[in-house]
Order: sequence, then C-alpha cells, then structure tokens
Amino acid sequence: MAGFRARLEEARRHKRSAVCVGLDPRFDQLPHRFDSLPPAHAILAFNREIVDATADLAVAVKPQAAFYELYGADGYGALIETVRYARSKGLLVIVDAKRGDIGSTAEAYAQAFLHPDGTFDADALTVNAYLGSDGVQPFLDVAAKYAKGVFVLVKTSNPSSGELQDLEIAGEPVYERMARLVDAWDCEAVVGGTYPAQARRARELMPRATILVPGYGAQGATASDVAVSFRPDGSGAVVNNARGIIFAADPAKAAQEMRDAMEEFLSHRRSEATPPGGIGEAR
Amino acid sequence: MAGFRARLEEARRHKRSAVCVGLDPRFDQLPHRFDSLPPAHAILAFNREIVDATADLAVAVKPQAAFYELYGADGYGALIETVRYARSKGLLVIVDAKRGDIGSTAEAYAQAFLHPDGTFDADALTVNAYLGSDGVQPFLDVAAKYAKGVFVLVKTSNPSSGELQDLEIAGEPVYERMARLVDAWDCEAVVGGTYPAQARRARELMPRATILVPGYGAQGATASDVAVSFRPDGSGAVVNNARGIIFAADPAKAAQEMRDAMEEFLSHRRSEATPPGGIGEAR
Repeated sequence: MAGFRARLEEARRHKRSAVCVGLDPRFDQLPHRFDSLPPAHAILAFNREIVDATADLAVAVKPQAAFYELYGADGYGALIETVRYARSKGLLVIVDAKRGDIGSTAEAYAQAFLHPDGTFDADALTVNAYLGSDGVQPFLDVAAKYAKGVFVLVKTSNPSSGELQDLEIAGEPVYERMARLVDAWDCEAVVGGTYPAQARRARELMPRATILVPGYGAQGATASDVAVSFRPDGSGAVVNNARGIIFAADPAKAAQEMRDAMEEFLSHRRSEATPPGGIGEAR
Repeated sequence: MAGFRARLEEARRHKRSAVCVGLDPRFDQLPHRFDSLPPAHAILAFNREIVDATADLAVAVKPQAAFYELYGADGYGALIETVRYARSKGLLVIVDAKRGDIGSTAEAYAQAFLHPDGTFDADALTVNAYLGSDGVQPFLDVAAKYAKGVFVLVKTSNPSSGELQDLEIAGEPVYERMARLVDAWDCEAVVGGTYPAQARRARELMPRATILVPGYGAQGATASDVAVSFRPDGSGAVVNNARGIIFAADPAKAAQEMRDAMEEFLSHRRSEATPPGGIGEAR
C-alpha cells in the first residue's frame, strides 16, 4: 500500500480537491429530523449523510474526537463507525484527537488509532508533541508500517496560540523549532490558516510534510490565507472546514464551492509559479 | 462543595497518604483468572479489585485513557465505569487523558470529562497547554464551577521531555514559562519525578498548585526524588505509581509500602523544616 502522503496526493489529483470536511457535529445543532434519535445515533446518521454528500468533492474528513467523547461510550462508538463509514466511501480519515503521551502510553494510542487491528484503523491522527520525540516515535512507527499519517501540531489556529508557540528560543520561535522536529521526523503537520506569515515559514521549514490547515471559514481564514501552505505546484496541503460545510443548507454545494474557490486560487498561483514551457504539475 | 485542591488536601491528611494509583491495565498482563473475559470486562473487573484493595491507602487513582481507548467503545465504557466505581469508594479520580484543543473543542472536552452531567464527571483531568490559554480556559471554567481540578503538563517524566520543555526562552526554559502560566491560571500541574532539579524549580514557581508526580517506581524516581514536589509541610503533591502497585503480587501491600516510604520521608523532611516550637502541620 502506498504511504499516506502518496495516497493523499493521489486523491487530491484525482478529485481536484484539497477539501477536508470537519465532522464536528453538535447534537443541538443538527437538523430537526434527527431530534428523535439518541445523540450518538443522531450524530452517526448525520455524518453518513455528510459523507455521502461530500465523498466526491473532498479528499478527507476530520472528525474531532471531543464531540463524540461528549456522548459517552455510545458517542465513542459513533466515532468508530464514522471512521469506518467514511473510509468505505473512499475518503481519507484524519482523526483529530491531538493525542500525545510518554512512550508506552503513546504506543497504546498509536495502536488504538492507527493500527489495522486497533479501535479505529484511521488513515491519520493529529498528535501533540509537547513531550518530545519519544512521545511521537510510537506513532511514527505504526504509521510507517501501515502507510498511515501523523499530523503534529506546529502552529495552531486559535487566538492565544502565540503564548507559547511564538516565544523565541535563540531567536527562533517555538513553532519553528517544532517545524524542524517535524521535518526531522518526516511526518505531517497542523498549521493554522489564521496566521499566514507563520504558515509561509512553516511551509519552508517542512518541504516534505503534508500540512493540515484548520481555520478556514468560521475561524476567518480565506483561500488566499491558506494558499501559502501549499507548494507552488498546488500539492502538499489539505484545508479543513467544519461548520461551513456540515451546517450549510446544502453541504454538497458548500463543499463544491470551497473546492472550486481553492482550486481557482491554486491554479492561478501555479500558473504564476511556472515559467513558460515549465512543468507546473511536477513533484 | 470544597474546591478540588481542598478536597485533595483533606483526603491526604485523613488518609496520611500521597499515593495515587495509576490504573493503566494491559489486558495481556492481567492475572490469568481474567483470561476468559472480554478485554473491556476484564479490565473493569481488575480495576474494581485494585480500587477495593487500595481505597484506604491511596488518595487518588489515575486511569490512563489510552489503555481503555485501545479496546473500542467497550473499553471507553470501562473507563467511564472505572471512574464511577473509584469515586463511589471515596477516591479522587484524575483522568489522565492529556486533552487540549482550541476553545470550542476544549469546551466539549471539559464538558465530557469534568462536568457533573458529562461522560465522566471525573474529579480532575490532565491537560496539554501547547495551544495557550484559550485552550485551557474552558477547563478552568468548568473546574471552578464544580470544584474540579485541571492538571497542566509542565515537565514530563519521559527521557526526551527536554527536547522542547528545556529549551530556553530569554534565559528561561519552556517548562518554567509553562509553570508561570499555571500559576497565573491558578490550576494544578504535572511535573515528572525523574527530573528533581526541574521539579524543585517548578515547585517554587507554582506555590499554590497541587503537583501530580508521575515516574515513581518503574520509571526510576525514588521517594527522595519526588519529595521536592511537596511543600515543606508535606502538602501540595500526589505521587503516581501504576505498574508498581497494580501488577504487584499484593497491590494493597505495595500501596501501603509506598505510602509508608513517602510518609516517613516527608515527616523527616517536615521535622527538619520546623523550628523548635513551630507549627509543621500549618495550613
């Protein structure tokens, strides 16, 4: 099986889309037709509709674990079933659980989220690397063996992300140090779309990484903001949008519009980056 | 209801113990009498035995979420039931899940883990603050309202914890900056027992915090190493031990020996710190 990065790029080219749909359902915000179901059932049924509506338009989905853990063991079961269903429809699944712990515990998380015989068998997982490389290595080991992806938090999209991440260590911000670690680990990264200057720098420091960009839409990032996380040829990133798609009146239309807006922007940028006679699609 | 910190200190004085039992069951390491049960049932049955054996000797238990997530929705259910059972036996429960995310997602995690109507209704939760204060605030809000505790990772016990945590920001290591944030948030902290020099400094920087000390026993920290995380009067910390208690031939005996070793060390230190006629037990 091809590595995660290759699988993602292949899907990206095939579908001409860099859209990742954030499956962050809130029971009290679901359409009223789900009111009669228990929360965990409602969420799963809702997610299946979203997956069906967007499977051809998005390359990936990113369920956010918190919104499932909120509903107990049944909610956790709905997350497991959501991962399974989205994968069965040809979508790559990045579970956004931001796990991270010391070695033996990280091994258990890696097994649970990424191993084919584990709880989820997801395609990729977001990981918090505050604990350093021995807390990341178990995820990298399982990922390498089973063509899975590990997205390490580098620069997050929230207002106070700079409190720690922008502080300077010997003239270099913490997030840049983290980006260098990610490059050394040769894994993927999360870089928020709400800080374009930092995102541009992170792209330079991690030339090989696939970057997961949260913050599009509701959090305020535009196609122009997130474009800096792509390589000049339009590869190397996926952009997440949760509320802007799943709670849209027509999720398929919202996903298509986002895809088209992104592709137009990226193709424009690609044509600017390609010298006459050059090969824009190279990688 | 008294705040979490006060509840913990009261239990600590009442039981004369600073022992926290790490409920990190691994199905394949359980006693053979559990072999015939499905993993999640076996883990819960095992945990109940450990809780019954140690409820009078320990102040808290700390289940590590990874070892439950490994067993799917049933494993997650076993974690929920473990929290409930340990609380019913008068133990404080610190769920070690190291959650942390942007504001709206952190709200969902806070609700799931700490809210009385949430999935767990635990007494406290470990939190990773790489995302900054808006990722921590939702936990603090729920904790303040319902007398729960929030343990932020400051300095972890693993070998590579220094890769990020010991780097210097304007002459001050990252973990010290995190300790200052913890003091500003007035919450609790995780400081590994395997780095006594950093633990001593962290204790100075967070005079109000209760410190959760992992790393005792299997990871190599001794009573002397972890003593620096206590205040001179013996308050202000709990020390976790997982494998050394739960996989001991006699868990009650192991918990009692650890309690006694800790108390002897702390009372010796207390008597040294108390001037003749002074009040060592103050606060």
